[in-house]
Amino acid sequence: MARIVMKFGGTSVGDVDRIRNAARRVKAEVEAGNEVAVVVSAMSGETNRLVGLTREVSAMHDAREYDTVVAAGEQVTIGLMAMALQDLEVNARSWLGWQIPVHTTDAHSAARIDRIETDELIRRFGEGQVAVVAGFQGIASDGRISTLGRGGSDTSAVALAAALKADRCDIYTDVDGVYTADPRIVSVAQKLDRITYEEMLELASLGAKVLQTRSVELAMNHGVRVHVRSSFSDEQGTLVVDEEEIVEQQMVNGVTYAPDEAKVTLRQVADRPGVSAAIFGALANANINVDMIVQNITEDGVTTDLTFTVGRDQLQRALKILEGIKPDVGWREVVSASDVVKVSIVGVGMRSHVGVAQTMFRALAEKGINIQVITTSEIKVSVLISADYKELAVRALHTAFGLDAA
Amino acid sequence: MARIVMKFGGTSVGDVDRIRNAARRVKAEVEAGNEVAVVVSAMSGETNRLVGLTREVSAMHDAREYDTVVAAGEQVTIGLMAMALQDLEVNARSWLGWQIPVHTTDAHSAARIDRIETDELIRRFGEGQVAVVAGFQGIASDGRISTLGRGGSDTSAVALAAALKADRCDIYTDVDGVYTADPRIVSVAQKLDRITYEEMLELASLGAKVLQTRSVELAMNHGVRVHVRSSFSDEQGTLVVDEEEIVEQQMVNGVTYAPDEAKVTLRQVADRPGVSAAIFGALANANINVDMIVQNITEDGVTTDLTFTVGRDQLQRALKILEGIKPDVGWREVVSASDVVKVSIVGVGMRSHVGVAQTMFRALAEKGINIQVITTSEIKVSVLISADYKELAVRALHTAFGLDAA
Repeated sequence: MARIVMKFGGTSVGDVDRIRNAARRVKAEVEAGNEVAVVVSAMSGETNRLVGLTREVSAMHDAREYDTVVAAGEQVTIGLMAMALQDLEVNARSWLGWQIPVHTTDAHSAARIDRIETDELIRRFGEGQVAVVAGFQGIASDGRISTLGRGGSDTSAVALAAALKADRCDIYTDVDGVYTADPRIVSVAQKLDRITYEEMLELASLGAKVLQTRSVELAMNHGVRVHVRSSFSDEQGTLVVDEEEIVEQQMVNGVTYAPDEAKVTLRQVADRPGVSAAIFGALANANINVDMIVQNITEDGVTTDLTFTVGRDQLQRALKILEGIKPDVGWREVVSASDVVKVSIVGVGMRSHVGVAQTMFRALAEKGINIQVITTSEIKVSVLISADYKELAVRALHTAFGLDAA
Repeated sequence: MARIVMKFGGTSVGDVDRIRNAARRVKAEVEAGNEVAVVVSAMSGETNRLVGLTREVSAMHDAREYDTVVAAGEQVTIGLMAMALQDLEVNARSWLGWQIPVHTTDAHSAARIDRIETDELIRRFGEGQVAVVAGFQGIASDGRISTLGRGGSDTSAVALAAALKADRCDIYTDVDGVYTADPRIVSVAQKLDRITYEEMLELASLGAKVLQTRSVELAMNHGVRVHVRSSFSDEQGTLVVDEEEIVEQQMVNGVTYAPDEAKVTLRQVADRPGVSAAIFGALANANINVDMIVQNITEDGVTTDLTFTVGRDQLQRALKILEGIKPDVGWREVVSASDVVKVSIVGVGMRSHVGVAQTMFRALAEKGINIQVITTSEIKVSVLISADYKELAVRALHTAFGLDAA
């Protein structure tokens, strides 16, 4: 007997038939003798509809009212899921965030879970009852409904698994696991049986939209074994686990890309203390997220070229802010480009293997792909290249690191 | 300064524009110096959508899960309404049933309000805050969401007005008041400025779908002054008040009809003790609601003819049940007809006027309309007639009692 949390995303509960399908999976786990908590998202499209209504009413939201509105989506799903389980003769009841309760911080619409009370859920496990829990929501100290931000149901599921000391947290979604690359680009991409938390974190933040970043952090911090799998097939998915559980580590486990990047270069910036702080401080104050940064001394020896990337949708705002601070900071010209893409290789094996970056650069050079910016972390190397070469680069790197399926 | 409850039904909050329109009405009351609680229904169509989902999942509901699902409709509206008010610079916050709390009985999906805690709402009135309250919902003693049954938002509003000792409860709806007759049938029908609780109760239960019956009972018991009015015009609607407040009482204040009736006659029933109990007991056990009943001794002196009415949609079930008990009870034949309609006149003035029924019967006779069954109460006379004469009868009675507009 194990205690497991099963999480079903929006597409997995998108209509009544799919809710029934998910309920059958829950029943199978119950019949196998497991204690089960089910965490559900809103039916697909529903959160967007509710968010749309709030925007239609007012551009400036009271986040507490926003939370009240959007939390209604998960409320509908838990009731329907509990009914579907009862219809299959499974003992089940629904739980709203405030009923459990799931205590969160007071940052409405972007709350964090502080603490989940589990005594009553565990008592009812003992009576054979399945807990159907609304994802994405909790209760703040003001006694009002709070939500965790988009994608928060993954976080709800992992936090509940941690609080319940569950043996496993199964994330049912519309993909059947985590792949070595986007299968739409790399037809020979392979599903990974296992991946480490650290790698999953890099992949999540790099744009592989399988799990919400915060849920992976939480799983890592509490050692929750996460199983990402499809709600539409019975195949094993991908286990997200601790590094020690993976005996033979690949040098690289995934090749990923982040489109929608834009590059900004400030030419011949006056090279004196405080210049970088002035530039990046102004951008940060405007909530513009700067990703890659490189700085080179120019030939004249007294100025530098400064290159960085921002989200493509933030480029125009970034350029406007730069214009505003130019008189104070000083540079010759600004050059920007939005036809760029960031391609990255990720793998915990890099820590113990040398020559990874070199293999990457050689593979790209062989295809005639010019590297514009490079950044690295302990388990990741990222390069900024022309968007024209996105698919070519991803496929070349996938092959170069031996990831192609046989 | 007054304390008022304003209730907006589904069509009055049917889309974002209508929510804004309702918010402007609330703002006007606030600016007039009033303390305001707003009770809202789900956006029109939303409750039907949610009920449809629960039916799709399972014919046999767990009423607690049903309540969790359908209560989501009002949750969305209160958040949007609070935002709309804030957008108009009105201090407002939303309240769910469990937050106030509105304590109800445990009869999930048909709960009754036991008690509403008002200290916090009143404290916030003192700070100039408008309370936006979810209608139709409360919290049961099991800590779970309960709902009051369809149309329950009227009841929520009146119960809140009673608990707050409000000066007035304004029910905003898609009609502009209570009429002397259905204006679609009687073009010269008049809007009533005032009507008594008793008359409104008779009209509500007779099918004039302006107010939910239970809300009228509650208003009568607690002396809540209810004002039924249109959310789409500024005209005065109809005040539902105590009998003493109406100085000059009309003999008849309304002519109404109930379509969808069916008549059943059992000919030559054995006339011995216990026969009526056997027949109506069997129908009651099958949840078939019997309305009018008349019994006549037949010519033979040893049997009776028994005639009664049931809802037209229950006729076939009623006939089946009668067939089942025929061997025990005994009668010669069953005759049924579903082409009948019940037409009624209502007025508290009947108590002090004589000859009302006579005026009614004469008016119908003059038009050649045959009366099949008659029932009376203190403030109502009802007749069952052929459905063919529905419009003619209503118009004739409207004229006979002097209700036609000049």
